[in-house]
Amino acid sequence: MATDTAPPQAPAPEGAEGVYVQPEVDVPALQALLDGRYAEVRNLVRSNLDDYASVLEEAETLSRADFRERVKEIVVEMAATGQTGMGFPQEYGGGGDIGASVAAFETLAFGDLSVLVKVGVQFGLFGGAILQLGTKAHHDAYLARLVTGELMGCFAMTESGHGSNVQALGTVATYDLATQEFVITTTTDEARKDYIGNAAEHADVAVVFAQLEVGGTSEGVHAFVVPIREGGAACPGVRIEDDGLKMGLNGVDNGRLWFDQVRVPRTALLNRFADVTPSGVYESEIENPNKRFFTMLGTLVQGRVCVGGAGINASKVALAIATKYALRRRQFEASSEDEEELILDYGMHQRRLFPLLADTYALHFAQEVVASRLHDVFSGITDDEHTRRELESRAAGTKAYGTWHATRTIQECREACGGAGYLAINRFTALKADTDVFTTFEGDNHVLLQLVAKGLLTDYSSDFSDLDQFGMVKFVAGLAVETVLERTAVHKLLERIKDVLPGGDDGWDQEAGLLDPDYQLAMLRFREEHMLGGVARRLKRGIDQGMNPGVVFSRVQDHVIGAARAHVERLVLEAFVDKARDLPEGDLKVALNLLCDLHALATIEADRAWFMEHGRLTSQRSKAISREVSSLCRKIRPLAGDLVDAFGVPDAMLRSPELVGPVGPVTP
Amino acid sequence: MATDTAPPQAPAPEGAEGVYVQPEVDVPALQALLDGRYAEVRNLVRSNLDDYASVLEEAETLSRADFRERVKEIVVEMAATGQTGMGFPQEYGGGGDIGASVAAFETLAFGDLSVLVKVGVQFGLFGGAILQLGTKAHHDAYLARLVTGELMGCFAMTESGHGSNVQALGTVATYDLATQEFVITTTTDEARKDYIGNAAEHADVAVVFAQLEVGGTSEGVHAFVVPIREGGAACPGVRIEDDGLKMGLNGVDNGRLWFDQVRVPRTALLNRFADVTPSGVYESEIENPNKRFFTMLGTLVQGRVCVGGAGINASKVALAIATKYALRRRQFEASSEDEEELILDYGMHQRRLFPLLADTYALHFAQEVVASRLHDVFSGITDDEHTRRELESRAAGTKAYGTWHATRTIQECREACGGAGYLAINRFTALKADTDVFTTFEGDNHVLLQLVAKGLLTDYSSDFSDLDQFGMVKFVAGLAVETVLERTAVHKLLERIKDVLPGGDDGWDQEAGLLDPDYQLAMLRFREEHMLGGVARRLKRGIDQGMNPGVVFSRVQDHVIGAARAHVERLVLEAFVDKARDLPEGDLKVALNLLCDLHALATIEADRAWFMEHGRLTSQRSKAISREVSSLCRKIRPLAGDLVDAFGVPDAMLRSPELVGPVGPVTP
Repeated sequence: MATDTAPPQAPAPEGAEGVYVQPEVDVPALQALLDGRYAEVRNLVRSNLDDYASVLEEAETLSRADFRERVKEIVVEMAATGQTGMGFPQEYGGGGDIGASVAAFETLAFGDLSVLVKVGVQFGLFGGAILQLGTKAHHDAYLARLVTGELMGCFAMTESGHGSNVQALGTVATYDLATQEFVITTTTDEARKDYIGNAAEHADVAVVFAQLEVGGTSEGVHAFVVPIREGGAACPGVRIEDDGLKMGLNGVDNGRLWFDQVRVPRTALLNRFADVTPSGVYESEIENPNKRFFTMLGTLVQGRVCVGGAGINASKVALAIATKYALRRRQFEASSEDEEELILDYGMHQRRLFPLLADTYALHFAQEVVASRLHDVFSGITDDEHTRRELESRAAGTKAYGTWHATRTIQECREACGGAGYLAINRFTALKADTDVFTTFEGDNHVLLQLVAKGLLTDYSSDFSDLDQFGMVKFVAGLAVETVLERTAVHKLLERIKDVLPGGDDGWDQEAGLLDPDYQLAMLRFREEHMLGGVARRLKRGIDQGMNPGVVFSRVQDHVIGAARAHVERLVLEAFVDKARDLPEGDLKVALNLLCDLHALATIEADRAWFMEHGRLTSQRSKAISREVSSLCRKIRPLAGDLVDAFGVPDAMLRSPELVGPVGPVTP
Repeated sequence: MATDTAPPQAPAPEGAEGVYVQPEVDVPALQALLDGRYAEVRNLVRSNLDDYASVLEEAETLSRADFRERVKEIVVEMAATGQTGMGFPQEYGGGGDIGASVAAFETLAFGDLSVLVKVGVQFGLFGGAILQLGTKAHHDAYLARLVTGELMGCFAMTESGHGSNVQALGTVATYDLATQEFVITTTTDEARKDYIGNAAEHADVAVVFAQLEVGGTSEGVHAFVVPIREGGAACPGVRIEDDGLKMGLNGVDNGRLWFDQVRVPRTALLNRFADVTPSGVYESEIENPNKRFFTMLGTLVQGRVCVGGAGINASKVALAIATKYALRRRQFEASSEDEEELILDYGMHQRRLFPLLADTYALHFAQEVVASRLHDVFSGITDDEHTRRELESRAAGTKAYGTWHATRTIQECREACGGAGYLAINRFTALKADTDVFTTFEGDNHVLLQLVAKGLLTDYSSDFSDLDQFGMVKFVAGLAVETVLERTAVHKLLERIKDVLPGGDDGWDQEAGLLDPDYQLAMLRFREEHMLGGVARRLKRGIDQGMNPGVVFSRVQDHVIGAARAHVERLVLEAFVDKARDLPEGDLKVALNLLCDLHALATIEADRAWFMEHGRLTSQRSKAISREVSSLCRKIRPLAGDLVDAFGVPDAMLRSPELVGPVGPVTP
């Protein structure tokens, strides 16, 4: 029986420095490392998840209407445990700890994701808007009641016509001097609010984003608190429609909203960044309208941090099931003629699952960094303009990477469980359907990566980071391009990088050093900066040739996205390397280094064509990397069960009785 | 308004040979080309799909029980139009045309996929087993009634413990000489039949695969007709359990079956390839038990051909919706400050959709080839051992490629439609959930690719192709390895290939010729044979070093899969090139050549690392290929709407009223 050992007759594992000794994984210690400073919070959520484990089945058995009610009930009951209000000030019943609130949200993603998203809508989006965009009067009026879930609200930003380009929303809020009210109006078919969570059934108020018009002047998008429902019925002038059945998340009541001259008092404007005086004067401390808009949006960065973390944790559930299944399932005789082979002993199966496992670890630590930065910025510990912009970029990148990772990982794990993976009881049905929209909501991933690239190209300059891509192209092609080009000049990159290589500049091409994190990081840094310089040069060349900036952008767009990806992958690897380096010597460090090496080399392997095209890999070394990835997979094989156990996914959240547990008694 | 023209200020499109003239696509002519010889059959199915278009909504509104009944009803009513029985002999009410039956099935995949899979279970798997494994007595007893759907059956092969390795099934059928009956028994928990379509509700009989035991000797897996239900209740000794909710295809009643000493007459054995005499003598014209087993399995190849085609056609639905949406949806100002840009004018969006569009065309023609080979073999037109083996391999490869393509394409199209893509009315919900298991059923894709590789390594030798991988490793490492190595020797490959290159051997590295199909094919052929040789060498080396064959196989497995992929990609490109070459000069040929070039170069681009590693691409030429892919995308941009219209997906099957049709009237 080779359930947890290397396959028979395998040669002794190789290792750069002599004999490799297989580490023992101390699962509780590794879980403690992953849980980090918020272990207590995470355990509270684990315990809540256990208490409401029946929701996973209820998602399948209840009618849509009943399931929505059940999800609301669970959210309110969880709120009573303090779990969902950790990010709000203590004077309103919150926990006053933003980092804790992110940790709680991430952990909730082990369970039913309608519950998660309902929590996100109510406390993150709705509550977050009141907290971040409102002032004391709004806090006093709403926070205490929304923290308990007594007051349910929604976040009405997206419209049918505008999801990504929210600066172009069509809803209008006109200030009526005579009555000192704002009049909210849905101006066109495309301007109806759409996909709004909590809108179809439960929200009594909405934070509505609309173009503010004061005295005939448009002041751009602002947010207003608008009552939409009273006693279960829509308020006068408000029309509500259900978005109907969705691919997943059907415990969340998404809907559409139309406003027909709906009047709200002047104080309904969430006025932290701008206000309208009773006499109809528009006032804001931020003069530039673009900057004002992006400042408002920036306060909502927590949502992206949370969704990214949720994607990463949903991936852990899938990996735990697929790995445990592969440690029980046998198929085909291979190394023995008498017994079929464990499917995790097949090289291809290891290649399918282990790089995703390593990426999940890497993303976990990258998420830890972004959550901690968020905490510091929003707790006022480090809150300057540049840090904020960097945080926004990091949050955007981690969200995009983490949610695409979830889509890919859950799919691979489903396929790795064969037909059994297709049965709803085995979790992948919900995981796939519910997480699918993660790549879209809280910012479409491609648009987010453009945001990342814009930050890099403009060095997070507060004067320029608020440009749309039309503006960005013109800007980058103009004066500042020289800076980017200077920063990313290849000879300088090489100069800076060769110091960290084992053999200096020649180190690029030695067989040794593949497992040196400095080498791995140097590769990703070189790629990132080189790509960025390429984008700047291409933009400049297009503009210099007299092409329309939009056409230039369209042609360079895949390079823009590529540069952003390269940047995010570098940040993720850095986070993992930093974490592993800080560990004391010992088995845990050995195990994490295996994962970190696998993550790094699989990342390089996936883009080895680029590295060869740019002279950073010979074909020999490229092949050596592929061999090393396979070798690392074999080393991880005996640790795999422990590595997924350390995620600390509660057993009840795995369900899958026949995949991860004993087969039930059969009485034919 | 640039809905269907190139973006403003784009420079004149480039072209290797002077000025490129944009073709006009004659949509009916292109559809006729795609529909091929079975246009009439496809139109019958299109018309049936229209008649039952309400099923797409019923899948969402009916209870699971009601939906199952509705799907059954539709299947029976469609059967009455002749649509589903085209592959059966005319004397039993069929159409006597296997090619027509595949065309009908493929086309049905434009609609609800529970209907499709129910048709596949009843007429393909159950009906196919009676037809192919049974003899006249079975045909007379069952065919006429099953063709009308009066007799519903199921195909009980898979067990909980064995899906891929069906030679190791646990169900046993023991011949009882005294009563001249077979006794069918589920021997262990793992031996219960599982995931069996039609079993939970509708099937009255099952074709049960079991280990035949005669006089104490095991004769391997054989198929038996076993009544399982009478008047709606399970027959004595048969236990039936519902598989419960699945990710998709919930109109199909999948279930589990246990047999407790269930007795069936001697004539229940489907005895085309083997029989048991009344006195208990086992007889078969095929002496080798392995060969007998694979001969039986081989008759079921039609299922794989059908599933591959279904995956390809489901991809067309997704691409049609996403492309039409991208021709209406605008977001962000880019080339104009006054109007937002059509999302299909973004280079990244083209890069996301058009290579998938080109692959879909390529796969369509590859599917046409495999369906036509199937027709010829099973109509007795070309039916020798080697042709059959080649067909089985081609079917396995096309199924794997076509179904993975569906998973990937539907996912990308969903994301390309943003949040709207998440609403069930917009089709992706069903497309994703229903097609997900295509990569698993009718053969797990990875296992199928191993089958393909095995065929290549053994040159479809009938003496060896029935080996399991344990046997294969030993075989390949033995005498025959020399043949493979000789066939794939690099110097010979180069010799054979350089003749077709524009500049002889130097042609590998000229900038010109990227759009030469001979160059493209030479690249894919070189890769395939080189990879195959690599696998053979690696297997031999491992065995020579004294390693366990299973361990050797595990280590080489990703190369095995890689070689099979390379083979399939070559077959697909060949099919496309052949089709395009045969066209008369004209706009249709120009348009198809654009797609064929895009398919070929995107395929090479995706694996350009391999080509660089093996000296077949310089970094300069590799980059040139990427530029050419982008350039081809821009040329396809103005044709995109026509290219998806030519798929001939009935409008009602697209649903998605707000994505592909006008936005409905809004009365705020």
